[in-house]
Amino acid sequence: MIVILKPDADLQTQNRLIDWIRSQNVEVQLAQGQRQTVLCLLGDTEQIDAEQIAAWRIVDAVKRVSEPFRRSGRRAHPQDTVITVGTARLGGGHFCLIAGPCSVETEEQIVALAKAVKASGAQMLRGGVFKPRTSPYDFQGLQDTGMALLKLARQETGLPIVTEIMGIGQLPLFADVDVIQIGARNMQNVELLRAVGQMKKPVLLKRGLCATLRELLLSAEYLMTSGAEQVILCERGIRTFDDYTRNTLDLAVVPMLHELTHLPVIVDPSHATGAAALVAPMALAAAAGGADGLMIEVHDDPVHAKSDGAQALRPKEFDALARRVFAVREAARG
Amino acid sequence: MIVILKPDADLQTQNRLIDWIRSQNVEVQLAQGQRQTVLCLLGDTEQIDAEQIAAWRIVDAVKRVSEPFRRSGRRAHPQDTVITVGTARLGGGHFCLIAGPCSVETEEQIVALAKAVKASGAQMLRGGVFKPRTSPYDFQGLQDTGMALLKLARQETGLPIVTEIMGIGQLPLFADVDVIQIGARNMQNVELLRAVGQMKKPVLLKRGLCATLRELLLSAEYLMTSGAEQVILCERGIRTFDDYTRNTLDLAVVPMLHELTHLPVIVDPSHATGAAALVAPMALAAAAGGADGLMIEVHDDPVHAKSDGAQALRPKEFDALARRVFAVREAARG
Amino acid sequence: MIVILKPDADLQTQNRLIDWIRSQNVEVQLAQGQRQTVLCLLGDTEQIDAEQIAAWRIVDAVKRVSEPFRRSGRRAHPQDTVITVGTARLGGGHFCLIAGPCSVETEEQIVALAKAVKASGAQMLRGGVFKPRTSPYDFQGLQDTGMALLKLARQETGLPIVTEIMGIGQLPLFADVDVIQIGARNMQNVELLRAVGQMKKPVLLKRGLCATLRELLLSAEYLMTSGAEQVILCERGIRTFDDYTRNTLDLAVVPMLHELTHLPVIVDPSHATGAAALVAPMALAAAAGGADGLMIEVHDDPVHAKSDGAQALRPKEFDALARRVFAVREAARG
Amino acid sequence: MIVILKPDADLQTQNRLIDWIRSQNVEVQLAQGQRQTVLCLLGDTEQIDAEQIAAWRIVDAVKRVSEPFRRSGRRAHPQDTVITVGTARLGGGHFCLIAGPCSVETEEQIVALAKAVKASGAQMLRGGVFKPRTSPYDFQGLQDTGMALLKLARQETGLPIVTEIMGIGQLPLFADVDVIQIGARNMQNVELLRAVGQMKKPVLLKRGLCATLRELLLSAEYLMTSGAEQVILCERGIRTFDDYTRNTLDLAVVPMLHELTHLPVIVDPSHATGAAALVAPMALAAAAGGADGLMIEVHDDPVHAKSDGAQALRPKEFDALARRVFAVREAARG
Repeated sequence: MIVILKPDADLQTQNRLIDWIRSQNVEVQLAQGQRQTVLCLLGDTEQIDAEQIAAWRIVDAVKRVSEPFRRSGRRAHPQDTVITVGTARLGGGHFCLIAGPCSVETEEQIVALAKAVKASGAQMLRGGVFKPRTSPYDFQGLQDTGMALLKLARQETGLPIVTEIMGIGQLPLFADVDVIQIGARNMQNVELLRAVGQMKKPVLLKRGLCATLRELLLSAEYLMTSGAEQVILCERGIRTFDDYTRNTLDLAVVPMLHELTHLPVIVDPSHATGAAALVAPMALAAAAGGADGLMIEVHDDPVHAKSDGAQALRPKEFDALARRVFAVREAARG
Repeated sequence: MIVILKPDADLQTQNRLIDWIRSQNVEVQLAQGQRQTVLCLLGDTEQIDAEQIAAWRIVDAVKRVSEPFRRSGRRAHPQDTVITVGTARLGGGHFCLIAGPCSVETEEQIVALAKAVKASGAQMLRGGVFKPRTSPYDFQGLQDTGMALLKLARQETGLPIVTEIMGIGQLPLFADVDVIQIGARNMQNVELLRAVGQMKKPVLLKRGLCATLRELLLSAEYLMTSGAEQVILCERGIRTFDDYTRNTLDLAVVPMLHELTHLPVIVDPSHATGAAALVAPMALAAAAGGADGLMIEVHDDPVHAKSDGAQALRPKEFDALARRVFAVREAARG
Repeated sequence: MIVILKPDADLQTQNRLIDWIRSQNVEVQLAQGQRQTVLCLLGDTEQIDAEQIAAWRIVDAVKRVSEPFRRSGRRAHPQDTVITVGTARLGGGHFCLIAGPCSVETEEQIVALAKAVKASGAQMLRGGVFKPRTSPYDFQGLQDTGMALLKLARQETGLPIVTEIMGIGQLPLFADVDVIQIGARNMQNVELLRAVGQMKKPVLLKRGLCATLRELLLSAEYLMTSGAEQVILCERGIRTFDDYTRNTLDLAVVPMLHELTHLPVIVDPSHATGAAALVAPMALAAAAGGADGLMIEVHDDPVHAKSDGAQALRPKEFDALARRVFAVREAARG
Repeated sequence: MIVILKPDADLQTQNRLIDWIRSQNVEVQLAQGQRQTVLCLLGDTEQIDAEQIAAWRIVDAVKRVSEPFRRSGRRAHPQDTVITVGTARLGGGHFCLIAGPCSVETEEQIVALAKAVKASGAQMLRGGVFKPRTSPYDFQGLQDTGMALLKLARQETGLPIVTEIMGIGQLPLFADVDVIQIGARNMQNVELLRAVGQMKKPVLLKRGLCATLRELLLSAEYLMTSGAEQVILCERGIRTFDDYTRNTLDLAVVPMLHELTHLPVIVDPSHATGAAALVAPMALAAAAGGADGLMIEVHDDPVHAKSDGAQALRPKEFDALARRVFAVREAARG
């Protein structure tokens, strides 16, 4: 940790600050410039709260050299984590297509879609039963009924299921879900992170709309310190000034996260773009850019989908895309 | 609602779309341009899910003319809502200073600060007991113990208390809290919004770091459809590219929200700027710009504060600021 | 163009507004909702300045249905534009690698790099001679001397050259340049756009750091109304809250622009990421996502590069990447 | 300057880097942590190009401790700069209202408005004659004719004039202008900054839509190293995700800039908000928050304004606002 003092910092306060830092069992080394003094903190600096140092008025800025990614960080765990769910594998060289409708609607719909996406090469089935909606007046998902239908589709196809949890009140319903999804809006819902972590199941953690990578990884830390070991990170677009697409797909975080963490990273091009015509090019881009998997929305009748129809591919479109995705991935590995 | 069709939309699909919209009991009026056709939807369009229309591939864009702000909107409720808590009043011409430490730490601390801020003109006491922290390794608040201390400070001073809830598991502890705060990270935690709404107490709802005003008001709708009537909206800075301040205070939303909603709007200059030196100018700016109140962090020993010391004012600084705030507010009213 | 009136718009002013619009030779159709009135403007609405309508205080919002992309728009020119420079072709199915150093430094450097990138499959040579720098105290490019060296490298290899112009005072030096680059900082420098357009040469127009696609295409319109016909659009990253990469590569604009315009679209992964380790994955992603070309910085000694060394690939790295890029592009086409 | 090395940095390369830094006449001090090594560079580090160090692959990050604000920085020039133009003074405790129409349109218009704003307390007259427009098809200003009218209004009222220059080709027309404005789109037009700097006149430099404060001050450095001494900085809103206002007024930069620089800082609430109803509250907020002046658009017939009518105040509205602004400013000073 680096502490940059203000040019007019008085020596007495500076000494009191240094004493306080040393009282935290951290070593301090001074670098005295022409105009400013810099303190280099050495040792176990991760347990120090940067804000407490920033509160000293002689302090101009505090910069962390190393981040407290104790469980998610590469350093702690150099080998890639591989998620194994049934026959599906994700991460560490294993690529996984996750597909299905935005919302589970009827038995026919979800079973037919599950069979279709499996035939195209998908290894997991997605389907929302609790839907996070901006407005209380929009469709909120089939809930318990939807969960039963989703499990039926699993039974019919053998595909593991991924579905989103929206609060701790729904936990009992998720005991039998293969991969529990935490959505972008709940990425920093600490109560939910802790409770889901305690279930010790695979978790798919979506990046919040304006979350930094640091925040994403610290949310993974909440899951992992609570017991989860198999955490999948998911880039699904961020919010920027750009108004031509629903969100801005931030694809460079895929290789960046691979540097920072051993956890697998997937991409959701459906939510990232919000438009079916952009899903295929961005799915291909993500595969070429090193993603460990893709989560794609598929619907046989997008116009009558209960949610997000505008971004759903039809099964035939998904099938054609899947083949190109696998080919691109091979080509990109060189 | 306005539906803009693509230039190459075929007539047959167009007619199917119009039939579908009319089947929702909404009237459709066509405007046929040289190159494009626009559908104007008239009637009770708020119950239509814009996404379902956007899913038609002949649709280029869907634009809402009126928003589903059924309870929070000005139209539904032209008079300003006035929040009354004990002797404090907020909104509809009543200005309210809310002050106190970021975190409740000790009995001495919170009681002394409560007395100090009351003497300076604050009408409510803030103090965090559950702290939303990005990292699981940072101080998480005194929790139950802190709540007891906060209530003690209320007893000593008569000031109503405002404190943040972080999940439904904490609800029993909040039965006796005067104003329940929902923080920026939980602005779209639907489970929490619904449960807090059912308590029918005043709620202070903070704007998420990248929430639009539409999203903020729709979160207020979740609270209000669940039973809350007294909702205070709080601007606390948004996340932008700008890296010189912790967040970017978006002050123009104050008059903008006053146009859209009857709910009172306050500003938190402490979190918006993250730096004590910027709190006073931004508090004055917010008062001049029409805010119905301010929430300001005060600490007698910022350097040893358990959280956010860098943005805390000392009681003396707060006292001087409060006087200027009241004067500016008078002057701004002209 | 759609004009949404305020709910309380008085009829008299409304009629004056309609008369004024009709006086501009545009037809107006009214859609009267329960609460609000919407005007649909039909005919040649592109000549109407939306701001003039927005200035009426009874107007709530003005939304354009069609954009004034008269020369750059797909509608005006459905066929892809193909840029032809020497033996290089770009757009309409032709993919082009542009490579070279950030700055031209010495004869040996630029000639060796030109030969190397040509051997790896690059079809154009890039090299900065006028460098746009944030600080006046940083290296500003070799200028006239650099231009001579760049042309020498062209002579040695036959590769057409692309280099950035920073102001109209430099125009005479650019008479013999194959593709004139306008950088992100100058994307809205109208004087420069007009003057470069008059040269009737191919232009590489980089998207500004916070430019919308609408703004990018309207800058292309400035070039095209002045005489340029061959305009290459370049995505090079936008500025967002994300602080782990230099900029945020906004790759979804590639397919989006292909919908809106007939002009070719390339990607600059070097400036978009600012880090050599991210250049290869993002170059592959861009190729898979449908870019018509890539512009990549290559340097044989990044550590001693005069600018942007951190994002430069070494010639060997570029060679390996180029092979994967070509393979990915083939695979992505399916 | 702080250089953080990667955890796996090899000692040999580390020593080569240190030797290279020392060869630049800068001292290096090592801080060796458990996992990472940090180099503190001491001495005249401002002449070192951070990018050149970042290009070493053993380097993880480079952070500047002090910025190269040689002429604009507080350190170089602790006293506030006061701009004096005719009888108007701005900065160092002097507050200045600048007002007038977005565009100069007719003699009657500009002369009447000049008289009106002067009567309300404005000390300078603004009026655009060259208009930077996103689209080449929108009104571009009256140009030479407009300049003559603006000077006529100056003659009639004695008010100094502020107007925007858009390129070096217009320089001769600006020899007699009191304050030359450089607009947001040209904030990093280096050719223009240098040429305007050489005129040694007062300059009003607007912050770019996504410019950091560092970039704004370095653009001021371009002006100042070229000869300008009297530079006024102007906050006019930044571009964010927020879509309810035209731009996001970033008011906290006013006190932040006052810390960093001795140059005066004004605010343009008209462009920042784009809506007349928001101009007054934001003007009051800026005055309370410490701005040294305001630039406000006034038009006697906004509906027929040639540009930006939606954000123009009528003279009567401006008059009422001016009185409140002066009162708020007094109150805020405490």
